[in-house]
Formats: sequence, structure tokens, C-alpha cells
Amino acid sequence: MPVISKKGLKMPESPIRKLVPYAENAKKNGVHVFHLNIGQPDIKTPQVALDAVKNNSIETLSYARSEGSEEYRTKLSKYYQKNEINVSEKDLIITTGGSEALLFTIGSITDPDDEIIIPEPFYANYNGFSTASGVKVVPVNSKFEDNFALPKIEEFEKLITEKTKAILICNPGNPTGYLYSKEEIEKLKKIVLKHDLFLIADEVYREFTYDGLKHTSVLSIEGLENNAIVIDSVSKRYSMCGARIGCIVSKNEEFIKTAIKFAQARLSPPTYALIASEAALDTPQSYFDEVIEEYVERRNTLTQELEKIEGVSVAKPKGAFYCVVQLPVKDTDHFAQWILEKFNSNNQTIMVAPASGFYSTEGEGKNQVRIAYVLNKKDLIRSVEILKEALETYPN
Amino acid sequence: MPVISKKGLKMPESPIRKLVPYAENAKKNGVHVFHLNIGQPDIKTPQVALDAVKNNSIETLSYARSEGSEEYRTKLSKYYQKNEINVSEKDLIITTGGSEALLFTIGSITDPDDEIIIPEPFYANYNGFSTASGVKVVPVNSKFEDNFALPKIEEFEKLITEKTKAILICNPGNPTGYLYSKEEIEKLKKIVLKHDLFLIADEVYREFTYDGLKHTSVLSIEGLENNAIVIDSVSKRYSMCGARIGCIVSKNEEFIKTAIKFAQARLSPPTYALIASEAALDTPQSYFDEVIEEYVERRNTLTQELEKIEGVSVAKPKGAFYCVVQLPVKDTDHFAQWILEKFNSNNQTIMVAPASGFYSTEGEGKNQVRIAYVLNKKDLIRSVEILKEALETYPN
Ligand SMILES: Cc1ncc(COP(=O)(O)O)c(C=O)c1O
Ligand SMILES: Cc1ncc(COP(=O)(O)O)c(C=O)c1O
Repeated sequence: MPVISKKGLKMPESPIRKLVPYAENAKKNGVHVFHLNIGQPDIKTPQVALDAVKNNSIETLSYARSEGSEEYRTKLSKYYQKNEINVSEKDLIITTGGSEALLFTIGSITDPDDEIIIPEPFYANYNGFSTASGVKVVPVNSKFEDNFALPKIEEFEKLITEKTKAILICNPGNPTGYLYSKEEIEKLKKIVLKHDLFLIADEVYREFTYDGLKHTSVLSIEGLENNAIVIDSVSKRYSMCGARIGCIVSKNEEFIKTAIKFAQARLSPPTYALIASEAALDTPQSYFDEVIEEYVERRNTLTQELEKIEGVSVAKPKGAFYCVVQLPVKDTDHFAQWILEKFNSNNQTIMVAPASGFYSTEGEGKNQVRIAYVLNKKDLIRSVEILKEALETYPN
Repeated sequence: MPVISKKGLKMPESPIRKLVPYAENAKKNGVHVFHLNIGQPDIKTPQVALDAVKNNSIETLSYARSEGSEEYRTKLSKYYQKNEINVSEKDLIITTGGSEALLFTIGSITDPDDEIIIPEPFYANYNGFSTASGVKVVPVNSKFEDNFALPKIEEFEKLITEKTKAILICNPGNPTGYLYSKEEIEKLKKIVLKHDLFLIADEVYREFTYDGLKHTSVLSIEGLENNAIVIDSVSKRYSMCGARIGCIVSKNEEFIKTAIKFAQARLSPPTYALIASEAALDTPQSYFDEVIEEYVERRNTLTQELEKIEGVSVAKPKGAFYCVVQLPVKDTDHFAQWILEKFNSNNQTIMVAPASGFYSTEGEGKNQVRIAYVLNKKDLIRSVEILKEALETYPN
């Protein structure tokens, strides 16, 4: 019998995957499950994007250009320019989601056994893409107590070796909701310049910053032109996760030239999704204003309600639509399963993401969960009620 | 300045890419270019698939399930059952094109420095996916004189080492148009069973077999259940290359379990394309009958016209829509560029794919080109006229 690769065996399962059968079982038993575990917003996709696809006049659904059409890239570069990111179409590669942007980026800058430093907790699939490329994730711990602010630069410095190729940040953060300040990015600038590292910034939640705070792109920082790589996506911005369009942005020409070779090998991003994404660039500002207002209200509601529960605390999010919540339990993996398997309140229950899956360091985050505020306020309030009741019932 | 990975530097450019600027230049100079170089058919996509997308009622374009919905996989498994491939929905993973199916497959069964044996000439992007995974392609030479039939099994046997993880065939072949017989697949069965190798069959051109010949899937061969992996795609079957939907098919449960982890990391195949692909399963047989009749006529026209030219010979294709053509020139890379750069006939010229890009062995295929019959007969006839004239003019 032929055997699976070592890499294949090491590929991590999605941290939520283990819970899926329990959620499905609950539903079979007539229990409604509120999904606080996912990154799939319930927000409507802009009509202009949906309409563009409905009104397409394609007769032969052809390959698109591997790096995306000149037209779309030019239009997209204007979006960046409006956001104080001074790039042109030649600095962009259109990818199949931010996911593929991450894969091409890691492939272009690392060889097997190389290392990437990532503040933890981090988006769990960074593990998957790194493993797929044979690359080691080196976590640097950020702290719940600091709302997951950037760890001290000395902590990074300690971890840099000959094999370190990049520092990867997510800004604003999934799962943390933390928004790095300009000062924090400037600190990262110094260290990546000093050690000739790439600074990869996953900015797929760029649009979602709250309390009047402004997002700082690594590409808006002078002097980082050769080091900065931005990972982007239409998934969250326009609530069109199913499109599968993302983007690599960099002023480093050799890097772009290399990443394009990865793009050529897989031929083309998805054509229908390109139509939707190009049209989505015409989404009126009012759409974003409304969406952000909605997220702010949800965040406020959620965090207020959560903090009313004894023993529960929240790392206050300033962006994205997630927060990490500390619970008075020892093992949230067990608790999350228990709520689905053994608990319900009036035939309703909740699904949360145990935070251990977002940490690379064994044992970290065991009393934390990630909650996504991708449900409406009423459902969020009810979900927190359920959580409260569950905590009271849970045989800790 | 941070540096590109060794892998990134090694990533091959598409063999046609070098010619693109010359083609663009020709067009700028008012010369019409007949594209015989591409795998993008001009055939219309089935109306039923196009309509399904136009009539969608999506409001929030959501992620699809990583491995594809149960519904689509179940419907797709029935397509395979009709084609004497006895699989169920749990043996399928829906991917973003056959391209991603190849990537996940190589990732699941190889580690860096492992080897995959592939009869050459082969689809050039096998090089890209292998390089991206740090895997070495070991070519086994198939011969123009034999129409690129399966090399002797001893030739494979000579190349097998401890690091060999799989044999990869393309059936019917791109660029060869060769269709492997059941006997040839049986020979491969023996050797992969003997050495515990995977047998990966890229069957994306399954539908396109001519002269009454029947396609033999590796999955229709008894005893290969643990070894056989089929790569599939809707791109060519329904002339919907831009959809980006493909599929991995295997009865090896551990392999499927592993490949699903790669699928989870990238979240989802493209949702609009899934709608089109699911609807495409209802394409009436008459569509395929017409398309195949069209391809047969094109093939006959093309090969007949080509063989009228002195010094030109064709490896007769039995499937797919490509053929390898031997030309009376020393270096088709140079010739292909020259036709675009220096030649035109009444302001018309042709773009062909130099065959060297399809060989892994340095120096092979230098007098061969691949011609795709993805243009209508009139254009094909005119293209061959242009080729004839060009050969007469070319300062060899
Ligand atoms: C931080 C982060 N990066 C990247 C992605 C990938 O998204 P996509 O591939 O849909 O663009 C996600 C999705 O949840 C994410 O949360
Ligand atoms: C032999 C072969 N395999 C796989 C592919 C990949 O096609 P796709 O990713 O569009 O399914 C192609 C495309 O030309 C091909 O010729």
C-alpha cells in the first residue's frame, strides 16, 4: 500500500472540524445552533457585485489572465491609492482568495525548514499553508491582558535565526481583533530591515476598524518597499467569501515576478468571481458605513453582555469581527464540545471556536474561545444568555 | 534586501510566456495571430451551466464546504458511475480546477526531494506543481515515432528509487493526444503494485476520444483501489476553463482524508463556479456528440493539411485536442518566435507552442511543436497555409 507524505500527515485539521459532527448531531436532535465559530458574515454582498454576475453575457467561460486582467488590477490599484497605499497594477497579483495569496507568498520566499515568526494567537490556517510548504511557524506570544498588542521587539529578536525568512502579522487580527498602531508597524520595520526579512501583513480585515481608529498598512510605511507584502481578499470586505478572489500586493519586483510563476502554474483565478470583484469596487461608501455601524453595535452588545457574566473577560477588539474571550473553565476544547453534545437551553445552543487552535505553543489559550460577531444583535444576546447558562451548568 | 526562495527561483515560467510579448507586438502592428498555442477551446459552454449562474438568487456569497457540498459530490459520483468508475461522494474532493487537484495530490503523497515519474512530453505545469512541492520530476521518454505510446515498463523500472512516490500519466495526453489502452494501464498496474506507488491519472480530457476508441480510467481497473488517483476538471469537458472547478477521485481513504486537510486550509472552492458545474452535469449527450464530431473534423483537417507539407509529420492524436508536430527546423523555440516577430502572410501569423517546454530532458523535442485544434476548421486551414509559407521563408 502506498503511503501518505510526512507533510500530509502533519497537515493540521481545522480546529473547529472536530466539533462539526457534534453540531450536526445537535441539529438532528432538533437543537438550534448559533454559529459563533465562523468567519462567514451574514451581511449581504453589495448588489452591484451580485448584479454584474447575473447580467454577464459569457458564452465561453474562458481562463482569465494568471495574474488577473490589466483592467481589474488597474482599477484595484486605485482602491489602494485611495487608502494611502501607493501601488500600481504591476504591483498586484490576483489570487484565488487571500488563501492562495498566502500560499504563493510562502512558496516564493521560503524553502523547506525555513521559519516564519507569527504573533500568536493567529489565524489557524497559517499553520496549514506553512506545513504544506514544509515551513516552521515560530510563535511569539501576545498577551490577552494587553488585548494582544504587539509583543516586545526583543521577543522577536530572540527568535530570529538564519532560517527566519519573514514576520507575518494579521492586521486587524483574527482571532484577536487587535489593530496594530503605526508605532507598532514602525517597530516591525526596524527589525525586518535589520535582518533582511519580509514583513507579510494579512490585511483582509482592513476595512473593519472601530472607534475612529485608522488602519496602517505596511505598504504605507516609507522604506519598507522591498520588504512589505500585503495579503488581501474580497471575502470579508464585500461579504463575498464564496467568490474566492484575493490579492498579493508588493513593491518588491523580484518577489512579484516569482509569485507570478506560481500563479501561471495554476492558470487562472475564477472568472465569475473576477466579474463580481471588479464590480464590487463600485460599492458605495454608504455600504461600508452601514456595515461598520452594524459591526460596532454588535461588538459593543457582545462584549457588554459577555462581561456581565462572572469570571468572563474579553480582549476588547478594535477591528475585524472576532474577539477572544476568557472563560472560567479549564479546557475550552472540552467545554465547546460539551455545549453541543450535552447542553441546550430551550432547544438552543452555541458553537464557539476553542482558542487552542489559534496558538502554536502547546497548552496556550486553553481557557479562551474565539467568538465571531457575524450574527445579528438579537442572536448575539441570546447566544450570550446560552453561554451564561452553560457555564452555570458545566461540571468543570 | 530579503531574498527569494530557491524554490521560487526554480519555478518554471510557462513555456509559451516568452512568446507572449512577440505576439502582443505583432497584434500592435496590425497582424492577426491565430492562437494554436493554447488549451482554451472556442467551444461554447453548455447553456444549462451559464443559465444556472445567471439565474442564481444569492444574497450573501458564502464559502462552500471545503471538499464540495454533499449534493454536488453525490451528483458527480453518478457521472463517474455512468463512466464505469464505481465511486461514491466520499471518494471525491472538489478542487479549484484540476490544477489544485494536482497540487493537493502531490502535497499529500510527497515530501521534498521525493520523485514522480512522468512519461515525457507532458503537461508543462506538472513541473510547476512539483517544484512548488520541492519534488523532482523524473521523465521517462515516450517516442514521437510510436505516437507517444507508453514507454516499455522496463524503462520505468530502471528509474524507480526509494524516493519514487508515484507515476503520473495524462490520459488522453496533453500535448500528445495519445490515448492509453487498457493493456497499457494494466502494465502500469503491475509496476505500481509491485513498488507500492501511487498511479495518478490526469483524465481531464476523458470525454475527448476519437475513432470509436474508449477511455480507460485507472479507477475502472480492479486491484488498483489503494493506488489510483484521478485528477479531473470541468474546464475542458464543458469548455468552462474559467470556472475553476476540478476534482480528486480516489478509493484510498487515507489519501482522501489527507487531501481534505489541504482543502480545508484554503477554505472553499469558488461558489459561482460550483453552481455552473453542478448544473453542467445536466448537459445533454447531444452537446458532447456535437463537440466530439467537431474535434474529429478539426483533427482530420489539421493533420491532413499538415502532412501535405514536406518535412512535416504528425503524431496522430486519438484524444484530447492537441497534437505534436515535427517540423523541418532545428530549434522550434527560435522558429516560433521568428514567426511572430519577423514573419506574416497577408498580415496574418500563427502562435505555436515549442515542444521543448513539454520535455524534462534537456534537448528533447527541439524540432517539435504542439498545435491545439481549438480553432474552427477555416482558421486551422489558413493557419497551416501560414505555417507552410513560414517554413519556406525561414532562414533555417
Ligand atoms: C486572517 C485571515 N486571512 C486570510 C483568510 C482567507 O480568506 P480568503 O481565502 O477567503 O480570502 C481569512 C479567512 O477567514 C482570515 O481570517
Ligand atoms: C493535462 C492537463 N491537466 C490539468 C490541466 C489544468 O486545468 P484546470 O486547472 O483548468 O482544470 C490542464 C489544462 O490545460 C491540462 O491540460
